[in-house]
Amino acid sequence: MIRVGVNGYGTIGKRVADAVAAQPDMELVGVTKTSPDYGAEGALRHGYDLYAAIDDRAAAFDEAGLATAGTLGDLLDAVDVIVDCAPAGVGERNRPTYEAHGTPAIYQGGEDAGIADASFNARASGTIRDADSLRVVSCNTTGLSRLLAPLDEAYGVEKARVTLVRRGGDPSETGRGPINDVVPDPAAVPSHHGPDVNAVLPDVTVDTAALKAPVTGMHTHSVNVTLEREPTAAAVRELLRAETRVFLIPEHAGIDGAGTLKDYAADVGRPRGDLWENCVWEESVSVQGRDLYLFQNIHQEADVVPENVDAVRTLATDVSREESVARTNEALGVGLDSLLSDDGSARGQVPADD
Amino acid sequence: MIRVGVNGYGTIGKRVADAVAAQPDMELVGVTKTSPDYGAEGALRHGYDLYAAIDDRAAAFDEAGLATAGTLGDLLDAVDVIVDCAPAGVGERNRPTYEAHGTPAIYQGGEDAGIADASFNARASGTIRDADSLRVVSCNTTGLSRLLAPLDEAYGVEKARVTLVRRGGDPSETGRGPINDVVPDPAAVPSHHGPDVNAVLPDVTVDTAALKAPVTGMHTHSVNVTLEREPTAAAVRELLRAETRVFLIPEHAGIDGAGTLKDYAADVGRPRGDLWENCVWEESVSVQGRDLYLFQNIHQEADVVPENVDAVRTLATDVSREESVARTNEALGVGLDSLLSDDGSARGQVPADD
Repeated sequence: MIRVGVNGYGTIGKRVADAVAAQPDMELVGVTKTSPDYGAEGALRHGYDLYAAIDDRAAAFDEAGLATAGTLGDLLDAVDVIVDCAPAGVGERNRPTYEAHGTPAIYQGGEDAGIADASFNARASGTIRDADSLRVVSCNTTGLSRLLAPLDEAYGVEKARVTLVRRGGDPSETGRGPINDVVPDPAAVPSHHGPDVNAVLPDVTVDTAALKAPVTGMHTHSVNVTLEREPTAAAVRELLRAETRVFLIPEHAGIDGAGTLKDYAADVGRPRGDLWENCVWEESVSVQGRDLYLFQNIHQEADVVPENVDAVRTLATDVSREESVARTNEALGVGLDSLLSDDGSARGQVPADD
Repeated sequence: MIRVGVNGYGTIGKRVADAVAAQPDMELVGVTKTSPDYGAEGALRHGYDLYAAIDDRAAAFDEAGLATAGTLGDLLDAVDVIVDCAPAGVGERNRPTYEAHGTPAIYQGGEDAGIADASFNARASGTIRDADSLRVVSCNTTGLSRLLAPLDEAYGVEKARVTLVRRGGDPSETGRGPINDVVPDPAAVPSHHGPDVNAVLPDVTVDTAALKAPVTGMHTHSVNVTLEREPTAAAVRELLRAETRVFLIPEHAGIDGAGTLKDYAADVGRPRGDLWENCVWEESVSVQGRDLYLFQNIHQEADVVPENVDAVRTLATDVSREESVARTNEALGVGLDSLLSDDGSARGQVPADD
């Protein structure tokens, strides 16, 4: 059993904790919180041991009536791997503590690439050996890497150009904007997302332009990939359908945006309505010469969660990448398989010259 | 004097009426409304003669206390050109009436291209002779045409790829959505906008992908143009700065989105806070090899307004395109010239290899 701790039980941390707890080969030792708020209560209701992330705030948990099992240092000494799910930039401040305890650590994509021995995406990263720390790339980078890796393998990516229409904030981040505006962010093009893809796919040329919009549900990517060899749209759809962490949204499912996507996720029983997969609109997948176009949605709260689980196995075991992905998918139920796309041969038949 | 009528005093019609009334060589004979609402009151307060667009609703204006000068037929018989500003698709239903009265007509971009003898954009259209009707292309197509025409002339456009993040509705369209979602619209790629650009720029290859967002202020375009000859970013900025209907947003002006853009327009005295120009973020103009990238905002209520004025002159006179544009710009004050971008040589000096 791999003993795992989660430092920071927030948007990502709570989901990583659930995902770790669901793995037969992992034990969630506990999670930390900086203050005794509703999130801390939620951790206890889930049956997770709660640790104070900051030593001198431990008493506040007692005063609030929430029992703690210790502080961060105690958790670090009890685990094989710590998954840092602190806000962006705080991971860098936490690193000396992990290193002082000799605890292998996983960081999130909000940290600089240099924080860890390697950046990680289960689908796209090359072989990683003897790492003591990994950085799971950000939600947007994860989504782009999962898409570009199979395209590069099948057709060769000459150049990818992506506009990211990012969600302004998560549903719980009530203080963020914009309201009633679409804001270039950054106004300079290209954005950092392209170089971040190169942290896991160093040989793929990708330019990204980023905006933020007054929505909380998901990120939306408008993707263009100029391929080295001309594909058919039908073949690209089949290629993406075969990727377990890509959900090809059936054309006639009545799913038109993030709202319906998350309603669907809730309908099929996903915890928190989470979508761990890239959600690609089947209808949008089209080809003009060697130019491929598509829209995909990325659930910023969820898509990195299975990646964190695989990163834990990569740090702590010799299990192969493929085996880890299969285990993670099996334990969580990753891989949406819509009855609307698979039922009936009529829908499956796409003209070869589509 | 060119006698002009406006059929449909709505979002576009009220602005076209103001713009026509401001031209020294034009007389606004009157405007129509289908019903006596706040818009009709506004027309009278502007001093415009009001005509009932639908004969058997004329009495309703009297009952509401709003005086009319007649019905649409009376207006058509009194003008040299009628500018149809009816909702999309209604222009097609109005066409037989215009033809029965022998009145040359201008339609808006919501109509099919086949409605008129030619599609029109003052910057991009080729020479137009002996036309009895013109269709001013849509706000988005106008914005793309104004951008692609000078780029094609200066560098040759190999291929343009544009993601349009469209506003969900105008500020007055309270019934429209989406709320809290970015929706592929249409989900299929490419959208109709690319072919519509070809109605005025037939030789430019352009693929467009369209989304709609919960904003009312402006459309946002994320533009990529692969050029035939490699430019510098500085040269493209100068090229665009020289276009009178393009506003290059100064990098340090504190303008970050549609909200600040329209605040600026109001500050400089623009009627209704209108932005007739393409608004291009100077900071976003960047070059990677032969790939040009930039963001531009398009004010969907306003950018076609000067184009309609030029279309009137094209139908009714032998005035050259350049002369018409100059007159329209002069009369309206088109051409934002920010003190922040022009003041001081330091800002104007951009490294040649930028």
